[in-house]
Amino acid sequence: MELGLVGLGRMGGNMRERVRRAGHSVVGYDRNPDVSDAASLKELVERLAAPRAVWVMVPAGDATRGTVEELADLLDEGDLVVDGGNSRFTDDVRNAEVLAAQGVGYLDCGVSGGIWGLDVGYGLMVGGDAANVQRMLPIFDALRPEGPRDEGFVHAGGVGAGHYAKMVHNGIEYGLMQAYGEGYELMARSGIVEDVHGTMKAWSRGTVVRSWLLDLLVRALENDPKLAEIEGFVEDSGEGRWTVEEAIRNSVPMPAITAALFARFESRQDDSPAMKAVAALRNQFGGHAVKSAGPTSGAGDVRT
Amino acid sequence: MELGLVGLGRMGGNMRERVRRAGHSVVGYDRNPDVSDAASLKELVERLAAPRAVWVMVPAGDATRGTVEELADLLDEGDLVVDGGNSRFTDDVRNAEVLAAQGVGYLDCGVSGGIWGLDVGYGLMVGGDAANVQRMLPIFDALRPEGPRDEGFVHAGGVGAGHYAKMVHNGIEYGLMQAYGEGYELMARSGIVEDVHGTMKAWSRGTVVRSWLLDLLVRALENDPKLAEIEGFVEDSGEGRWTVEEAIRNSVPMPAITAALFARFESRQDDSPAMKAVAALRNQFGGHAVKSAGPTSGAGDVRT
Amino acid sequence: MELGLVGLGRMGGNMRERVRRAGHSVVGYDRNPDVSDAASLKELVERLAAPRAVWVMVPAGDATRGTVEELADLLDEGDLVVDGGNSRFTDDVRNAEVLAAQGVGYLDCGVSGGIWGLDVGYGLMVGGDAANVQRMLPIFDALRPEGPRDEGFVHAGGVGAGHYAKMVHNGIEYGLMQAYGEGYELMARSGIVEDVHGTMKAWSRGTVVRSWLLDLLVRALENDPKLAEIEGFVEDSGEGRWTVEEAIRNSVPMPAITAALFARFESRQDDSPAMKAVAALRNQFGGHAVKSAGPTSGAGDVRT
Amino acid sequence: MELGLVGLGRMGGNMRERVRRAGHSVVGYDRNPDVSDAASLKELVERLAAPRAVWVMVPAGDATRGTVEELADLLDEGDLVVDGGNSRFTDDVRNAEVLAAQGVGYLDCGVSGGIWGLDVGYGLMVGGDAANVQRMLPIFDALRPEGPRDEGFVHAGGVGAGHYAKMVHNGIEYGLMQAYGEGYELMARSGIVEDVHGTMKAWSRGTVVRSWLLDLLVRALENDPKLAEIEGFVEDSGEGRWTVEEAIRNSVPMPAITAALFARFESRQDDSPAMKAVAALRNQFGGHAVKSAGPTSGAGDVRT
Repeated sequence: MELGLVGLGRMGGNMRERVRRAGHSVVGYDRNPDVSDAASLKELVERLAAPRAVWVMVPAGDATRGTVEELADLLDEGDLVVDGGNSRFTDDVRNAEVLAAQGVGYLDCGVSGGIWGLDVGYGLMVGGDAANVQRMLPIFDALRPEGPRDEGFVHAGGVGAGHYAKMVHNGIEYGLMQAYGEGYELMARSGIVEDVHGTMKAWSRGTVVRSWLLDLLVRALENDPKLAEIEGFVEDSGEGRWTVEEAIRNSVPMPAITAALFARFESRQDDSPAMKAVAALRNQFGGHAVKSAGPTSGAGDVRT
Repeated sequence: MELGLVGLGRMGGNMRERVRRAGHSVVGYDRNPDVSDAASLKELVERLAAPRAVWVMVPAGDATRGTVEELADLLDEGDLVVDGGNSRFTDDVRNAEVLAAQGVGYLDCGVSGGIWGLDVGYGLMVGGDAANVQRMLPIFDALRPEGPRDEGFVHAGGVGAGHYAKMVHNGIEYGLMQAYGEGYELMARSGIVEDVHGTMKAWSRGTVVRSWLLDLLVRALENDPKLAEIEGFVEDSGEGRWTVEEAIRNSVPMPAITAALFARFESRQDDSPAMKAVAALRNQFGGHAVKSAGPTSGAGDVRT
Repeated sequence: MELGLVGLGRMGGNMRERVRRAGHSVVGYDRNPDVSDAASLKELVERLAAPRAVWVMVPAGDATRGTVEELADLLDEGDLVVDGGNSRFTDDVRNAEVLAAQGVGYLDCGVSGGIWGLDVGYGLMVGGDAANVQRMLPIFDALRPEGPRDEGFVHAGGVGAGHYAKMVHNGIEYGLMQAYGEGYELMARSGIVEDVHGTMKAWSRGTVVRSWLLDLLVRALENDPKLAEIEGFVEDSGEGRWTVEEAIRNSVPMPAITAALFARFESRQDDSPAMKAVAALRNQFGGHAVKSAGPTSGAGDVRT
Repeated sequence: MELGLVGLGRMGGNMRERVRRAGHSVVGYDRNPDVSDAASLKELVERLAAPRAVWVMVPAGDATRGTVEELADLLDEGDLVVDGGNSRFTDDVRNAEVLAAQGVGYLDCGVSGGIWGLDVGYGLMVGGDAANVQRMLPIFDALRPEGPRDEGFVHAGGVGAGHYAKMVHNGIEYGLMQAYGEGYELMARSGIVEDVHGTMKAWSRGTVVRSWLLDLLVRALENDPKLAEIEGFVEDSGEGRWTVEEAIRNSVPMPAITAALFARFESRQDDSPAMKAVAALRNQFGGHAVKSAGPTSGAGDVRT
């Protein structure tokens, strides 16, 4: 089938390639003319035969919302838009409404797989109407990994469900990464396990903790067994935060994933104001000289 | 080669079978005569030609320590004992000493894989001397999964390193399970993802969170999509606790794995004394009548 | 001075009393005619001489926002509204704008103290313009505890700062209560401290952990040393959640306060879906019979 | 009465002074001759009339255990030793046995109050036999704060109960400090509360969070409102760790206090190995060039 694809960055560019490899026709648009097939969003739309399907793969937030609004103006009744970006699920209802006002359909699709997706395929979680999902199946089949369809693709629910599933996926991802990281640190610190890289590699087959993330960590340790060249500074995207916010909204205890999120916050702090306060408190009761009250001769750190 | 195997429960029995399938000769001993090859530990030792290799696969703690002591009496100089149970790594030094006094060698071996190990193979983490490890390689090769040796087997370090690695493996396992559990709960609770089982199944290929544990959770949801027949009551073995204790001893922050351990404690409580105290506090400042001080007319729950 | 007071529940009623005791004139309005001084909000406004000051003490959210809108219609330029409820700080900007459109000033005031405030006084945290704060000082002085003004009152910042400070106050409150609860539980569980109530009472003077909350917990234990009559079921108001949400928004690690919030969520669950999932996983790899793959004879719980 | 006091550091020195102020006779011994009353432990014992009471106030661990052993040799049947240090409660049983073999009694006493204790008095938690407690009451009364005895003193239980109570006290202390620290950080970071010091000071009276620790934090902020001169580097003594270890041993969930302990560990790390591992993982799936598998052209950080 024919697909319009807006956004040809690392994800979008690879996805265009994968869809083409599957024999579909793709017209891509990107603000960067070097990678773009069409000169404008308008031209992209014009080059597609109705009823059109346009996949949006641009940064979540303003960029996605803006692109959807533009498309609402350009597209015709019966066309279909898929937001494959990492939008917050709450954006989907609005996007769907904006498009529905023009008779244009909408699907939200969480896409997982990173740079490996071009060759391995992308895990897909889709929200929206069943008829729209059905219509896009050829593209979903092109993008998802080989194997049974239901092991790499799901119609998760109504509008927003796809991004919701992707959000939870990423929250879990935070927790998994943190668990491996904590175990790695304990081994690295205690010194009792002399071959940390070899130990984690030995977990690759047969063990309970085997996983794709484990394989990646083993790869990282292969060249840099002490991770000496990597700083423990970790960004967080919106999805980890949204997951915890959703946990709070739903009264769901989420201690491990939240611990992973907070560990990322900490990793980016030069100094911790909270720990400054704790240190100040210890000084206060532990005996550093204070001015206005209490014993005048106290000094040093004492038992409390 | 020839192996003595003490303990023929679910793990030991399967391991005997897997080692035999690989063409080795195994004399097994178990207190249960129905499954035992030898009538006693003494007979097991007598039926093996020196230098002997005896694998101990009995419950950690007193049972393992007692078996090692018995073996120290029965074995001869040049023999070798492998503790394949879930012993605390601190037991290994003592076990090695008890055996060394008789000239008997010692290896500790963490074994992962559960009931799947018979067919898939067991992940193995070994501590002890290189010469002893070398000597046991045929058995390790029989037990470990097919594929490159270093993807299912490691000589992790000196005595204790094998069980240490297994302890950390299990600590990580706690964290991974908790992360999946939290994500599952959020989806189950919020209702936005209508097909929770299908969504987790769709993570099986291509996604960042794909893992063997995920596959198992998908299997569990297959028959019981709401886990209605399972109670949220989770035991913990020693290894999760030991992991956190080691984290404390080594000043390693371990928030996610510790959260997983505490969640298991909570899962087994009928009521929480801590939360009784918190409820009592809220009552106190929120307005239930109190006796000795404060307003006499206060009642009900008020803003604080 | 003269004050209009909207909302005469447990907090508002006591505050009317405390302000009157200080010699001020209060016209109160409540939907409950039994406690109301005025028959309507309109009458309340009419009975006050301009420039008026009206204190709103109704539930946060719709009730407060609705009351502010009504007051915007009823009041005149130069009047002043104080929201003393537990509103989210993000409501304050909107409330201030609604009123400013009519020339009416606005202050937000976090009020702490619960049922004890009538006699002890209320801790007050105020946000808004300095001139408005100055104008309300006689009322603030009436409400706050005796002692230096700055030990029970603060002009914390611009509009919203008062409720923000109160929000953080309540977040800290969650953490403090949780810490006492956890310590109580450990003593109650281990049995090594035989007199738990007496021990906590002995912390009342001289120790580092002495506090008003400790005093309240000692009171609660006085009559019910094992808290046998209290269920460990704890509600949470919005402010604990908002505090954690703000922590996330500001990339502030907040593990202890978040732990307290999650402990409340857990306290209200009959069973934990997350722990169902963890239990299901243990069953899967630990050996309960499974259908489609792996060993056919596996049963029971085995080492992993 | 007459008391021998071993250890005249900041705590012991102040305690000697406070006991003397109450009219008792104290013979102190310290390795530092400048502060010592007796030239040796032997001389201290000789200068006391039997039956003697000797209070040990030296560092926990080897120093205390060694002092108790020395005293067991020097003292006579009917004498009494009190360990007022921060010993682990598990040391107490052994100390009591060592002394009992010589007919010498033993009490363990947790002491709280730090440098403020000299003037304010010390909170005391005692473990051991009632008769021994009774015999030491004059000294306990001299040390504890003024006010009702049971608000600053408790006979908590048998041998070890005093140090157990102190251990839990310190665990709670960790949690309280962390809660204030987190709240402080949020206010400091968000900027919405303009006067953070003033806000915390305004919590001193009437609020739910008022406490001695709050008063100390307000003092610290008085001179350094942004804590600019304090590094967020916080030591931990043994008692926080022991508290969490006891929680684990007793299957007690302790998330907030444990979070406080881990925050201290983090505060002392230059870089976090766990977060290095997490960063390495993000690099792996997010697109930095990798060697052996996957796409060859991938680069940069992409959606996962």
